[in-house]
Amino acid sequence: MPIKSRIRTIEHYPKQGIMFRDITTLLKDPVGFRITVHELTNRYTGVEIDRVVGIESRGFILAAPLAYLLGVGFVPIRKKGKLPAETVGHDYELEYGTDRIEIHTDAINKGDQILLVDDLIATGGTAEAAVKLIQEMGGEIIECCFVIDLPDVGGRARLEAQGQKVFSLCEFEGD
Amino acid sequence: MPIKSRIRTIEHYPKQGIMFRDITTLLKDPVGFRITVHELTNRYTGVEIDRVVGIESRGFILAAPLAYLLGVGFVPIRKKGKLPAETVGHDYELEYGTDRIEIHTDAINKGDQILLVDDLIATGGTAEAAVKLIQEMGGEIIECCFVIDLPDVGGRARLEAQGQKVFSLCEFEGD
Repeated sequence: MPIKSRIRTIEHYPKQGIMFRDITTLLKDPVGFRITVHELTNRYTGVEIDRVVGIESRGFILAAPLAYLLGVGFVPIRKKGKLPAETVGHDYELEYGTDRIEIHTDAINKGDQILLVDDLIATGGTAEAAVKLIQEMGGEIIECCFVIDLPDVGGRARLEAQGQKVFSLCEFEGD
Repeated sequence: MPIKSRIRTIEHYPKQGIMFRDITTLLKDPVGFRITVHELTNRYTGVEIDRVVGIESRGFILAAPLAYLLGVGFVPIRKKGKLPAETVGHDYELEYGTDRIEIHTDAINKGDQILLVDDLIATGGTAEAAVKLIQEMGGEIIECCFVIDLPDVGGRARLEAQGQKVFSLCEFEGD
């Protein structure tokens, strides 16, 4: 468990009862970061991919080296109002209220094979909105890829119920 | 100018009179992204570096592949309240009001050789705050590295006046 053992758990963050899985301890460790990027690269080497899409902002930290190593372009999905050119966006529900993610309209071409990357999948609300954005632009998602899956929170099942393939490097159960 | 020619300029964003330099067109281009990361990696290969520190969030996109390729750890500097463990922070001035960046207190050890990375240096307010954070933790900054420098706005000169080395892959003048 070279990856899982390097992830720190912070209890009661950001609020009481939540076990926050903190990847900064994995990222700052040269071996941990290297193994993480290696495992993702090995999985997708030889797969037809046109773009790696990372979700702001921890998703960027994994998606960028992966795009580089696969020799493809990197595309950011960002929070509302952060991208300077023409965008399309999707609102998604939070526990209280809603949030919105956006992507540049010229970031993906119809038929592009897309790998979607974020650090963690919990309820899957953000990932689901990202999937919709990519699909609206005609992109075909080959897989949704995460470092951490919290299966008890249901995000993986939610994406799979919509026909998405989901991969994670490790799981934390009981969250 | 394989890098500069791939950067898009958006006029009057985020407000009237500003020429926004948008790197998303560079990043989504497989060749552009590859050349950018190569040039940075070539510059720092063989240099003693313990950590690459990226500034949220576009800085992550360059700092992460660079850390990976140099075989060192990646450390994020984030906006206020985004890091889950114990942090130190610095306020810095914006045109209107202030903002704050933070770093985990366990992210850097005393004497660590640090490469600081962001996508762009304009007035240098964020970079200056990042430099102070790293120095307070005992880190020694070997260079502050950017894709884009806007020399007319004075950030490079501001950092250099404090004894920092500054490097950028390209400049846009007249901003």
